[in-house]
Amino acid sequence: MVPTYRRALIVGAGLGLSAALARLLAAEGLSVALAARNTEKLQDLAAETGAALHVCDATDAGAVEALFARLEPALGGSPDVVIYNASARLRGSIADLDPEAVARALSVTALGGFHVAQAAARRMRPQRHGAILFTGASASVKGFSESAPFAMGKFALRGLAQSLSRELQPNGIHVAHVVVDGAIRSAARPDPEDRPDATLDPAAIAKTYLALLRQDRSAWSDEVAVRPWVERF
Amino acid sequence: MVPTYRRALIVGAGLGLSAALARLLAAEGLSVALAARNTEKLQDLAAETGAALHVCDATDAGAVEALFARLEPALGGSPDVVIYNASARLRGSIADLDPEAVARALSVTALGGFHVAQAAARRMRPQRHGAILFTGASASVKGFSESAPFAMGKFALRGLAQSLSRELQPNGIHVAHVVVDGAIRSAARPDPEDRPDATLDPAAIAKTYLALLRQDRSAWSDEVAVRPWVERF
Amino acid sequence: MVPTYRRALIVGAGLGLSAALARLLAAEGLSVALAARNTEKLQDLAAETGAALHVCDATDAGAVEALFARLEPALGGSPDVVIYNASARLRGSIADLDPEAVARALSVTALGGFHVAQAAARRMRPQRHGAILFTGASASVKGFSESAPFAMGKFALRGLAQSLSRELQPNGIHVAHVVVDGAIRSAARPDPEDRPDATLDPAAIAKTYLALLRQDRSAWSDEVAVRPWVERF
Amino acid sequence: MVPTYRRALIVGAGLGLSAALARLLAAEGLSVALAARNTEKLQDLAAETGAALHVCDATDAGAVEALFARLEPALGGSPDVVIYNASARLRGSIADLDPEAVARALSVTALGGFHVAQAAARRMRPQRHGAILFTGASASVKGFSESAPFAMGKFALRGLAQSLSRELQPNGIHVAHVVVDGAIRSAARPDPEDRPDATLDPAAIAKTYLALLRQDRSAWSDEVAVRPWVERF
Repeated sequence: MVPTYRRALIVGAGLGLSAALARLLAAEGLSVALAARNTEKLQDLAAETGAALHVCDATDAGAVEALFARLEPALGGSPDVVIYNASARLRGSIADLDPEAVARALSVTALGGFHVAQAAARRMRPQRHGAILFTGASASVKGFSESAPFAMGKFALRGLAQSLSRELQPNGIHVAHVVVDGAIRSAARPDPEDRPDATLDPAAIAKTYLALLRQDRSAWSDEVAVRPWVERF
Repeated sequence: MVPTYRRALIVGAGLGLSAALARLLAAEGLSVALAARNTEKLQDLAAETGAALHVCDATDAGAVEALFARLEPALGGSPDVVIYNASARLRGSIADLDPEAVARALSVTALGGFHVAQAAARRMRPQRHGAILFTGASASVKGFSESAPFAMGKFALRGLAQSLSRELQPNGIHVAHVVVDGAIRSAARPDPEDRPDATLDPAAIAKTYLALLRQDRSAWSDEVAVRPWVERF
Repeated sequence: MVPTYRRALIVGAGLGLSAALARLLAAEGLSVALAARNTEKLQDLAAETGAALHVCDATDAGAVEALFARLEPALGGSPDVVIYNASARLRGSIADLDPEAVARALSVTALGGFHVAQAAARRMRPQRHGAILFTGASASVKGFSESAPFAMGKFALRGLAQSLSRELQPNGIHVAHVVVDGAIRSAARPDPEDRPDATLDPAAIAKTYLALLRQDRSAWSDEVAVRPWVERF
Repeated sequence: MVPTYRRALIVGAGLGLSAALARLLAAEGLSVALAARNTEKLQDLAAETGAALHVCDATDAGAVEALFARLEPALGGSPDVVIYNASARLRGSIADLDPEAVARALSVTALGGFHVAQAAARRMRPQRHGAILFTGASASVKGFSESAPFAMGKFALRGLAQSLSRELQPNGIHVAHVVVDGAIRSAARPDPEDRPDATLDPAAIAKTYLALLRQDRSAWSDEVAVRPWVERF
C-alpha cells in the first residue's frame, strides 16, 4: 500500500534543501509548514509556496511540543510528513574546540531531531500513518579529521533514525535517513572547476525525498545516499 | 540533468521482479528486451509488454557479447538501461556443499553480472549515457549461516557495483545496487501469518528502480535497500 | 614501532570491564587511575591493583580538565592510555521517553567521551605518543527498537572515535573503538541457559584492549568487535 | 576458554605476510605447513622455520582435499589453524578486462578460499576446535575504480568469512577476516616519501593474527582491520 500524505513540517528550514522540499511538496498538493529559529529569511519562500512559518528552537523540547500544538489548526491536522534538517557544522582540531560549543552543536544536530521525532511519533502512532525523514551528511557514516562535533551529531542522528525505523515501521510509520554526500549547490559556492552536475542540485535531492514518500509499505527504504559524480567516496 | 532512457535489457528475467520491471519500463515507454537461459516461461509476459525474448546464458562471456549484438536491431540501438537479476541461491552447510555447484553458483550470481556490465559499459561509455542496475539481496551485506555460496556471489556482485559506480559515474553512467531485503511476494509463497505488506510487492520494488532512473546526475544514489516492515534487520 | 605505555586512566570505571582492565594493565606494569562519579564501590579494586581513585563527572568539561591536572602527580605524568567506559543505557519507546533524561544520557555516553578525549589529546599531541580507547556496544553500529537514546549516544561516540583516529593517528596517537557486542558476564546476570562462554568474560575483553595497545604503529586497528558465539549478529 | 592451537597451514604462501606468519607461529611452538602453487621461492623460509612445503593449486577442490590428506602425517594431525592468503589482484577498466582472466582471478581470490575452508571445517567440526583466518584487503570493503575483479574476489571472500563465522563459531571454530588496509612493507617497494611506519610491517600484521588466536571463546572477533597512519580511509 502506498500511503497518501497531506501535511508536511520541515524543521530547521533554510533556503537550500528545505526550500526545494517546500516547493516540491507544495506542488504535490501538501500543506507545508516551515520551522526555524529565525524565519525572517523564509518570507519570500512562504509567499511562493503558501507555507506557514513558525519560529521554533528545536533544542527546546517544550518549544517543539508547542510548535506541533500550534501548527495543527493552520495545517488542518497534525503533519504526516516531518523532516528534520537542522544541523550545526562545527569544525576544529580536538585540542581547540570549545566544549560548550560542542554541546550546543550536538544538541542542534541530534537532540533536536529527537524532540521533533518524539512529537511526530506521538501523533502518528495512533493513526498508524506518517513519515519521518532525517537529513544526513557524509559525516553521518564517516568521521572526518578536525570535524568531531559534526560527526558526533550526524552519527547520533543516524542512530536515532535506525532505532525509530525498527520501532515505528511495524506501526505503519515510514522512517528514513537521507545521506547527502557532497556539497549542495548554491550561488554563493559555485563549483571551483565549473564542472556540470558537480554539486547536488537541491531540487534533485528533494525528488529523492519524494520518491521515499511514494514507496509502497511492502518495500520501504530506511536509508539512501545521494551524491554527485565528482565526490570521492 | 535527468537522463532520458529508451531501451532496457533485463538479464536473468523471471516472473517475479523482472516481470514487474518489464511492465513498468514498458509502461514508461521504453523498449524492453528480456534475456534468460530459458524463455519459455516468459511468453505471456512478452505478449503483454511487447518485450523481445532472448535466450542467453550470462555465465558465457561470448554469449553475452552475442546477445548485445543481436538485440540492437530489434531495440533500435544498444540498451541504455541494463539490469542484472540472475542469481543462484545455493544453500547447505560448509561441509556438505559440492564445490562444482558452488563454482557454478558464483558464476551465475557474480561473473554473469561482470559479463553483462562489461558489454553494457563498452556501449555506454562512448555515449556517456546509460544506467546499469544490479539486484542484490540480504545476503549482499550479511553472510548467513549455511549460505556461504549465496553470500559469496552476492557480496561479489556488490563489489562489482561499487567499483563500477566509482569508475563509470564520472563518465555519465549511473550504476546502482538495489538490496532486496526480504521475501518477494508470490502466489506460491504467501506470508504464513497473512500479514498485510509482509512480503515485497514486485511492482513496489520496480518503482524504486524507476526512481533511480529518474534521478538527476547531480544526486545519484549508488545503493538503496528495500524491505517490508516484518523483516528483522 | 610498538609504543610503550606507562600510565593509564579509565573513566567511567565500574566493577565489570573496567575492573578487568585495571587488573590487566596493573599486571602489565602500568600505573592506573580510575575515575567515576562515585568511587565508593571501587575501594577493594583500588586496594587490589594499586589504582588511584578520582571522583569525576565526565559530563562536566571543567571537572575533566581538573581531573587530568590532579592525577599527574600521583601517576608520575599525564596518562598515555586513556579509556572511556562511561555510558547511560536509557530505554523506552520514543513516545514515552523523558527529553531531559535523553539529554543527560547523550551527555554521559558521548559528550563525556569528547571531554576526556580532548583533555587526553591536549597532553598526548606534544608528546606524539598515547592511546585513546572508547568502549562501544552493539548499539554503536545498529539502532535497536525502543533504545533510541542509547543508539544516539553510542553512534555519536563512534563518530568521535572515527574522527579522532583520522586526526590523531598521523600524530602518533592510537585511537580505537571496541564494540562489545553482547552481555558482559556478571554473577548477577548468569546466562539463563547456562551455556559455556555465552557471556563476554570481562578479562577476555580486556585482553583485546591490551592487544590493541601492543600493536605496531604501522598496523594499527581503529575498531574491533568482540562477541560470544551465542550472539545473533 | 582460550583455545590452544598446535598445527598451522598457510595457503597461498609467499614471502610477505605469510613468511611473517610462519615465523611467528613457529616461534609460538606450532608446526607449520606452507602451500603454494610454486614452492621454489619458499625453500629458505622452510629451512628457517621448519615449515613443510606443499605444492597445491587452491582453485582445484580435489587438490585441496589431497593437500589436507597429505599433510596430516607430517604435521601430526590435521591443522587446527588454517589461513587463506591467496589472491589475484587484476586491474583494468571494465571495458578492457579479459573475461577469462577475471574468472581465474575470482577463482584464486574467493573460490580457493571456499575449498580450503571446506576441507578445514570438515576436520575441525568433529573436534569442535580450530581457527580459520582469511586475509582481506582495502578492496574487501570498498570497490575501487578500475579494480572490479579484485573487489569481486575480496568481497566474496568476506561474504564467505561472515557466513562461516555465523555457522561455525557455535561449534567452537573461530573464523575471522583480517582487512589489511594499505601497502605491505617490502624492500622492493619502499615508501616513496620514506616516512616511518608508512607501510604495514608484515611482522606487525602477523601479531594481530596471533592476538586473534589468543582470544577467549567468549569474546571472539570476526573481523579486524589494520592500517598505517598514512592511509586515507
